[in-house]
Amino acid sequence: MIGGTESGLKPWQNSARDLVNVAMGRKAADLVVRNGRWVNVHSGEVIAGTDLAIIDGRFAYCGPDAGHCIGEGTEVVDADGRYLVPGLCDGHMHIESGMLTVTEFVRAVVPHGTTSMFVDPHEIANVLGLDGVRMMHDEALEMPVNVFVQMPSCVPSAPGLEHAGASLGPQEIAEAMAWPNIIGLGEVMNFPGVAANDQTMVGAIAATVGAGKTVGGHYASPDLGIAFHGYVAGGPEDDHEGTRAEDAIARVRQGMKAMLRLGSAWYDVAEQIKAVTEHGLDPRNFILCTDDCHSGTLVRDGHMDRVVRHAIQQGLDPVTAIQMATINTAEHFRLERELGSITPGRRADFLIVSNLAELRIDEVRARGVKMAERGRLTGEISAYEYPQAAKGTVRLGKELAAEDFRIEAPVNEGRVDVRVIGVIENQAPTRAMQATLDVEGGIVRMDRPNDVCQIALVERHRGTGAVTNAFVSGFGYTGDCAMASTVAHDSHHMIVVGTNHEDMATAANMLGEVGGGVVMVSNGEVLALVELPIAGLMSDERAEIVAQKADRLGEAMRQMGCTLNNAYMQHSLLALVVIPELRISDVGLVDVTTFETVDVFV
Amino acid sequence: MIGGTESGLKPWQNSARDLVNVAMGRKAADLVVRNGRWVNVHSGEVIAGTDLAIIDGRFAYCGPDAGHCIGEGTEVVDADGRYLVPGLCDGHMHIESGMLTVTEFVRAVVPHGTTSMFVDPHEIANVLGLDGVRMMHDEALEMPVNVFVQMPSCVPSAPGLEHAGASLGPQEIAEAMAWPNIIGLGEVMNFPGVAANDQTMVGAIAATVGAGKTVGGHYASPDLGIAFHGYVAGGPEDDHEGTRAEDAIARVRQGMKAMLRLGSAWYDVAEQIKAVTEHGLDPRNFILCTDDCHSGTLVRDGHMDRVVRHAIQQGLDPVTAIQMATINTAEHFRLERELGSITPGRRADFLIVSNLAELRIDEVRARGVKMAERGRLTGEISAYEYPQAAKGTVRLGKELAAEDFRIEAPVNEGRVDVRVIGVIENQAPTRAMQATLDVEGGIVRMDRPNDVCQIALVERHRGTGAVTNAFVSGFGYTGDCAMASTVAHDSHHMIVVGTNHEDMATAANMLGEVGGGVVMVSNGEVLALVELPIAGLMSDERAEIVAQKADRLGEAMRQMGCTLNNAYMQHSLLALVVIPELRISDVGLVDVTTFETVDVFV
Repeated sequence: MIGGTESGLKPWQNSARDLVNVAMGRKAADLVVRNGRWVNVHSGEVIAGTDLAIIDGRFAYCGPDAGHCIGEGTEVVDADGRYLVPGLCDGHMHIESGMLTVTEFVRAVVPHGTTSMFVDPHEIANVLGLDGVRMMHDEALEMPVNVFVQMPSCVPSAPGLEHAGASLGPQEIAEAMAWPNIIGLGEVMNFPGVAANDQTMVGAIAATVGAGKTVGGHYASPDLGIAFHGYVAGGPEDDHEGTRAEDAIARVRQGMKAMLRLGSAWYDVAEQIKAVTEHGLDPRNFILCTDDCHSGTLVRDGHMDRVVRHAIQQGLDPVTAIQMATINTAEHFRLERELGSITPGRRADFLIVSNLAELRIDEVRARGVKMAERGRLTGEISAYEYPQAAKGTVRLGKELAAEDFRIEAPVNEGRVDVRVIGVIENQAPTRAMQATLDVEGGIVRMDRPNDVCQIALVERHRGTGAVTNAFVSGFGYTGDCAMASTVAHDSHHMIVVGTNHEDMATAANMLGEVGGGVVMVSNGEVLALVELPIAGLMSDERAEIVAQKADRLGEAMRQMGCTLNNAYMQHSLLALVVIPELRISDVGLVDVTTFETVDVFV
Repeated sequence: MIGGTESGLKPWQNSARDLVNVAMGRKAADLVVRNGRWVNVHSGEVIAGTDLAIIDGRFAYCGPDAGHCIGEGTEVVDADGRYLVPGLCDGHMHIESGMLTVTEFVRAVVPHGTTSMFVDPHEIANVLGLDGVRMMHDEALEMPVNVFVQMPSCVPSAPGLEHAGASLGPQEIAEAMAWPNIIGLGEVMNFPGVAANDQTMVGAIAATVGAGKTVGGHYASPDLGIAFHGYVAGGPEDDHEGTRAEDAIARVRQGMKAMLRLGSAWYDVAEQIKAVTEHGLDPRNFILCTDDCHSGTLVRDGHMDRVVRHAIQQGLDPVTAIQMATINTAEHFRLERELGSITPGRRADFLIVSNLAELRIDEVRARGVKMAERGRLTGEISAYEYPQAAKGTVRLGKELAAEDFRIEAPVNEGRVDVRVIGVIENQAPTRAMQATLDVEGGIVRMDRPNDVCQIALVERHRGTGAVTNAFVSGFGYTGDCAMASTVAHDSHHMIVVGTNHEDMATAANMLGEVGGGVVMVSNGEVLALVELPIAGLMSDERAEIVAQKADRLGEAMRQMGCTLNNAYMQHSLLALVVIPELRISDVGLVDVTTFETVDVFV
């Protein structure tokens, strides 16, 4: 039984008598809201002149007159004809993408109307395994809003091609399914594995289905032929990797929920929503989500309010758009008794909105408690202290030196042909390039004029001291510099990209010292640093601070000559050995078209 | 985990690999259907040129070409452009209303396209308690279609005003929630009890919610004010007692599912569907059901096909009407992974339909197996033998004599004023009437010219030999006769209505001999008899036979002068001590406006 174990919230059964007593006027409500326009996501109506009565953090009465629910001690709020909208749900997202703790993420998004999140702690799982998932799960339980956890399904992402900090199999997944706040299985990314009946994938999905929970999908391919049908038959129930209207249509026809995402770098709503606005599909199968949001997006642009607004701008009726971020999400996760609508028994998560089409949010309430007013957090959210085990996870095993980043050539002097990871602007795939480089004293030289610098994957989970060296092109660095990051999807070792070996060592060692993060070093000097002491992935500072530091980092990258869009993101994805063509891992340089390691030298 | 424990059906997890193998073309399907028009209840589309591939009784592939799924041994069916419709679901119903066993009910309805039923064995529960529920539950598990059981919530219906054969409390309900095929709580009929936080109701609902299952509702009142809101706050999730459009609208707005019923005597679809067709409510919250169907209706008019057809005739789009009998029902009971649509993983329950608007069903398949063709059952359904404990439940304690039905007057000769239960044609409520009757030798005489005859409630569960005698008016019997029935809602003692004491005794004793049923006797001769040996409620004969016998009974009633519509039903409801105004029970004559027993004499 999911729900009701969270901080300060009784299970529905324990409040049932009082809900009835309030509805019947035998007991005073904690809160009564009068004269609102009820955005009813069940009926699809907006009903003027609606009152709400709340007790124990749940709606007890929703109807024309809650006067009989008011007693001594009842807080009475006049909605003054404004809209009462259910709190928004983010159907799939990664907290770690914001570089924030759950607590700080919640602080940042609650003023934007998000009161329920379905989070997949895939990144921390790659660093700390089941313990890491449990840490975020336990933090989630402390929140004054609903943070449900999807158990990561693919850790590591590419067994055999990398060694992550941990690995999770069907046994761990079955264990986690019994935790109070685990809502299902996180996106099953190994889609070829599902279609191939890979033992781990079959076991993970079976454990989830056996627990009666929701299996998240991730089918990142435009192929809607047999491979797609094989994936569907394997059991995933949603997918947020579609980009075209035909992707959304194909998923819905197969009984999956089409999750449409608008994240910091994902813009997949506009095209796919045409499945509803142009092709007329039943909107009940569409769910809005963000997947990944950086702190800067949260601070500057918003969260689920931004997604709903965007969906409305695409021509969706506002109530339909709101359904896609409320009741549709709740039903998908079998939480329709708990949340997703303003109706009796549900958690009293709601927004007071003065303009529906623009979703102008005046006030956010979670479990009846005022959490935010006009974009400003007003509710109490206690600081959360992560256990020591979450920190100090950057284990280099030794102090790195410039020599560790030298690439020895098979010849002492002359020129060699090397493989180069080619970054493609605005795309996740890389290009497998080649370059001819000079060799001096047996060491290959980088070629700054032709934008060929070095990339290193520094093992950081087991302190082996191992460094995998290779070449990369596309960042356009013109200065003496190195950037290092322990956010290095998905195994989250450390990626260092630099134009000289000394700065590469300095940057790597700096992250070892602060316990992880992202740093840009130039001639031994730190230009920008985002400390991420929790698992090397998350800060424990406020979103505004993290956003500022991240901005400074972007500035530093530009200062060193990099003009790429989303340059930091490109950096952090270069070890993602599941997306073609060429990547780096602790195992070596990986050709992700053949799934084999290849030599740096051609 | 519900589902997959039924006869011959593996849990999804055990078939998952083969589903993927078939979808990928690595294994031959059991069945491939080619070239159908896919009625896709997720997207709301009809998609021409669709193939289906099935293995292990589940859909493995649904798409444009299942050629790669065909191998040796694959049965290939050409749909020839006809519609492929998901098997129909009856969202709430009582098997016992058909006087049939589960097996015989299934035989009768499968040719009408019903492949999933949500049955509330409320009647047998009143006779045999938890054992009776278990018997029908276990029989349900043997069916080749899906028969899910709702645990009866209100046994007895009116504690204190009657003694049923058993009683069920929160403990029994919690116990049953762990049985494999219990899908939720049966209609919570004690709606004043819910609003009053009655201990038993609160406990029953809490046990169901705690088990993550669906709470069925029954709010049989036109009052949509505070009493309604109190009921809603108590937790029921659906309601089939609405009759007006405003009833359906009110329920949906509160987050309940509006169940619209078309039974043998219920006609509640036409008015309520206007909530969708005229008021524009989101149709996803509407579910079609039958509640109660007599054998004659099943044999002559159909079952869920009749309801869907009727809904279409009310102006509903055929796909929307079908959604209300498929996916909407499945989602309501959290079975969306198992049934309710033609999509991978779901049970391969589907209909081949040659005309969608008329729902002309050519073929019915359940779990891939052909069960019926052009209205004729073709599939195997084995006979089911009820345990001995289900039989011989009519315990009279003694042979009844005419004297047992005499009503002694407070005077020896003269006239007395008595209370009379007044039957109202086509309505469930009765009228509390009075009459002045002659007394002869201390015994009150009936008044046939003024249509006042006798009614007796014969205790039949514990063999106490007790007979409660009173008067009834409205049947219009003109002949010497008595009709007895062990179908006597809800406690199912025996109701005898007669114009003379001898026939009343003969009729009652006859039912004691055959173990229950309905009989009409005239001058010691049996005019019609429907034997119901299972719990005194159900026959083990075929629907056609039972319908014939029931027809003969109706004929006999008419022959004796009764011209009432649904005369047998009126007879069987006279002990229903929860509906006003005057009823009879083993406790006495009950005034159902004050909930007190009253004397026969005024």
